[in-house]
Amino acid sequence: MGLIVQKFGGSSVANAERVMNVANIVTDTYKQGNDVIVVVSAQGDTTDDLIAKGKEINPKGSKREMDMLMTAGEQISISLLAMAIEKLGCPAISLLGWQAGFNSSSAYGAARIKNINCERLNKEIDSHRIVVVAGFQGINKYDDLTTFGRGGSDTSAVAIAAAMRADKCQIFTDVEGVYTADPRKIPNAKKLDEITYDEILELATLGAQVLNNRSVEMAKKYNVELEVLSSLVRKPGTIVKEVAKVEKMLISGVAKDCDVSRISVIGVSDEPGIAFKLFSRLAAKGINIDIILQSVGRNNTKDITFTVARSNGEEAVEIMRSFIENVGGSDIMIDNKVAKVSIVGAGMETHSGVAAKMFEALYSAHVNISMIATSEIKISVLVDEEDADKAVAAIHDAFIN
Amino acid sequence: MGLIVQKFGGSSVANAERVMNVANIVTDTYKQGNDVIVVVSAQGDTTDDLIAKGKEINPKGSKREMDMLMTAGEQISISLLAMAIEKLGCPAISLLGWQAGFNSSSAYGAARIKNINCERLNKEIDSHRIVVVAGFQGINKYDDLTTFGRGGSDTSAVAIAAAMRADKCQIFTDVEGVYTADPRKIPNAKKLDEITYDEILELATLGAQVLNNRSVEMAKKYNVELEVLSSLVRKPGTIVKEVAKVEKMLISGVAKDCDVSRISVIGVSDEPGIAFKLFSRLAAKGINIDIILQSVGRNNTKDITFTVARSNGEEAVEIMRSFIENVGGSDIMIDNKVAKVSIVGAGMETHSGVAAKMFEALYSAHVNISMIATSEIKISVLVDEEDADKAVAAIHDAFIN
Repeated sequence: MGLIVQKFGGSSVANAERVMNVANIVTDTYKQGNDVIVVVSAQGDTTDDLIAKGKEINPKGSKREMDMLMTAGEQISISLLAMAIEKLGCPAISLLGWQAGFNSSSAYGAARIKNINCERLNKEIDSHRIVVVAGFQGINKYDDLTTFGRGGSDTSAVAIAAAMRADKCQIFTDVEGVYTADPRKIPNAKKLDEITYDEILELATLGAQVLNNRSVEMAKKYNVELEVLSSLVRKPGTIVKEVAKVEKMLISGVAKDCDVSRISVIGVSDEPGIAFKLFSRLAAKGINIDIILQSVGRNNTKDITFTVARSNGEEAVEIMRSFIENVGGSDIMIDNKVAKVSIVGAGMETHSGVAAKMFEALYSAHVNISMIATSEIKISVLVDEEDADKAVAAIHDAFIN
Repeated sequence: MGLIVQKFGGSSVANAERVMNVANIVTDTYKQGNDVIVVVSAQGDTTDDLIAKGKEINPKGSKREMDMLMTAGEQISISLLAMAIEKLGCPAISLLGWQAGFNSSSAYGAARIKNINCERLNKEIDSHRIVVVAGFQGINKYDDLTTFGRGGSDTSAVAIAAAMRADKCQIFTDVEGVYTADPRKIPNAKKLDEITYDEILELATLGAQVLNNRSVEMAKKYNVELEVLSSLVRKPGTIVKEVAKVEKMLISGVAKDCDVSRISVIGVSDEPGIAFKLFSRLAAKGINIDIILQSVGRNNTKDITFTVARSNGEEAVEIMRSFIENVGGSDIMIDNKVAKVSIVGAGMETHSGVAAKMFEALYSAHVNISMIATSEIKISVLVDEEDADKAVAAIHDAFIN
C-alpha cells in the first residue's frame, strides 16, 4: 500500500504486445492497493526516427522545433498505455509533461526540471486513476515544450517520486537489476540486492550505465528509494538507497569504460597556476576531465596527462595546441586505445588492501596499468583497451568469488 | 500586404519533399510582405496510422486517449514545416492547438471551437515570425487535448482567420479550385473564379466535398474570404465570399453523392404527428435525414420515404422497425443503389425554368427520377446509382456549355 512510481523505457513499450505487458505490471501493482504513477518513454526507436525526419528536412533545425518534434513520441506511448490499462479494466489517464506540471528551464534539448506543480497529479491520484506521464519532457516559462536530454525519462520518474513523496520509484529495464559486472561478459556476475546511491553513481560514471546519473543524483538528494528491475521477468531487482544492507562483498561492482581518450601535454612550465590555466581552458569549452596525472617536475618542466570522453578527444587536443602556443609546452600526445576499469564499493572505505589486491589481480593477468585514480569508494585504472575485458574478469574473480 | 492564413492538408505535407514545397509557398507569401499563419494537418496517413495503433491495443479506448494519441500527428508536421521554413531563411515558430489559444468544448473527437485566445499568435506575428499552427486540435476546460473531427483543420484555419481578422484564408488542396462538376468525370468541367458561401455549402452537402462544411459556415458567419487553390500548381484558385461576381452561368456546379440510402416506411397511419414521431426517433440517434417524400394519404394510411447517409442505413431500418411495432405501419423498404444528383447556383433564385431544364436533360438521357427536393439555390434528384454519372454529364451539358 502506498504511492509507487514506475518507469518504463522505450524498449518496454516498443509494440502493442509490450505495451500490454507493461499494462499488466501496472494494473497488478494498482490492484494490490497502491496508487500508481507510470512514466514512459517514446516507443522503441520513435525518438531516433523523429530526429531523422527532422534532420532530413533541416539538419540545422532549431532546438525548439526539435523538442516540439521529439515530444510527440511520448505523447503516442502514454495514450497507448492508458488505453491498454483501460482494456484491463482499470481507470487510467495520460498526461503530457506540461499537464503533469513539469516546469523546466528554457534550454531546449537539455532542459533542467525546475519544479513540479503536483496539482493535476494529486487530483488524478485522488480520483484513483492510474496516471501515465510522458517522461523526458516539460514546459518552459514561454509555454514551449522542452526535453531533458537522453535518459531524461529516468529523471522525470525520480522527480515525480520526490515531488509526490512516493514510497518507491521502480525503474524497469531489460536487465534484472544491478550486477557486480556486465553479466553478458562475466558469467558469474552477481545481481546485487541493494546498493547505495554513491556506488551506483560511481558505476554509472564508470560505464556501467544502468540508470541515468542525473536521476540517481536527484534520488539521493531527495532520498527517493529506487528499484532497478526487469519489465520481462517478474522478480525483485536491486534496491538503491542511502545505506545499503551490508553485503558480504567488499566491492559492489567492476565496470569498464571504453569511452576514454588519454591526452598528455609534455614539457609545460613547472610553476604555480599552470594546471589551473590548462584545465580552465577545457572547462570553458564544457569538456569534462576524468583522471589527472602530473609528473614530478624536472628541469623546470613537467608533463600533465588527463583523460576525457573519446568524443571530446580531438577538441581537447585543439585546445591544448592553443595552450602550448600561448602558455608554453613542447608536445601533445593522444591515445584513443585505452579503457578505464574500476571497482566500486562503499566497503572499501573501511577496508585496507583493496588497491593492492586489485593491482595483484591485474599483474597476475598480465595487464599493464598506465594511470590510477582513487576516491573513497572506487579505484580506477587506465589500461590498454584490448586488455579491458581480461582486467574486468581478473578483478571480478579476485573480489567477488 | 496583409495577414494571410494558409491551410495545407495531410497530402500536401506527406513527405520531406512536399513539406519543402509548402515551405516555399509560405515563404514566398511572407517575402511579398505579408504576415503569414499556416495551419497544417498531420502528414499523409499519420492520423489513420495512429488510430490503427490505438485500435490494435484497445478497440474501445476512451475518446480522450484517442485524442491524446491523434494530436501527436500535427505536432510532428508543424515542427517539420517550421524547420523547413527556417531552412529557407525565414523565422518560424510552430504552435500546438492549445498554444495557439484554441479553447474548445469538451467533446473528445468532435469538439467545437469555443474561442481563440490570440495573445500568443499576436505576439509571434508582432515578432514577424511565420506561425505554423497545428490544425484539428484544441484544449478543453480540463486542460486536456481535443480534436475537431474530420476536416477539422479547415475549421481551425477559418477560425484563426476570423479571430485574427485575416485578409484572406487560403485552403490549399490537390485540386485547382471549385469546378462546375468533378473534372475527373466531366472533361469540360470549368473552374469557377468565384462562388458564394451558400453555393459551396450546398455543393459540399451534395457530395462535392472541397471544403469542410463547418469551416464554410464559420467563414460565412465571420465573413472570412476563402480561396481554394492547389498546393502543386501555382495559379489562382476559386474565391469563396458572400457575393460572388455574377457569372454568366446560371448554375455554379453539378454534384453527385452516392453516400445515400433510401428508406420507405409503408402504410403508416395518416394522422397528425406521425411524421414528428417518426423523425424524432431518428434525430434521437443522431441520424440526419436529407430528402423526405410523403405520399398522399389513401385509406387512412400513407407512405413516408426519406434518405440518410448509407452508413446510417441499417441503423435507420432498425429504428423504423421499432417504430412500426410501437406506432404502427406495414412494411419497411431500403434501397442502397441510389445516388443524389444536384445542381447548385445562386442564379436560379431569379431564373425560372431551371428545374424544367434539368428534368428535360435527364429525360433526354433516359434517367429516371425517383425523388426530388429543392431549395432556393439547389435542385436535387434521386436516381439509380448506375445512372448517376450519366445524369451529371447530361445536366452539365445542358447548363454549362
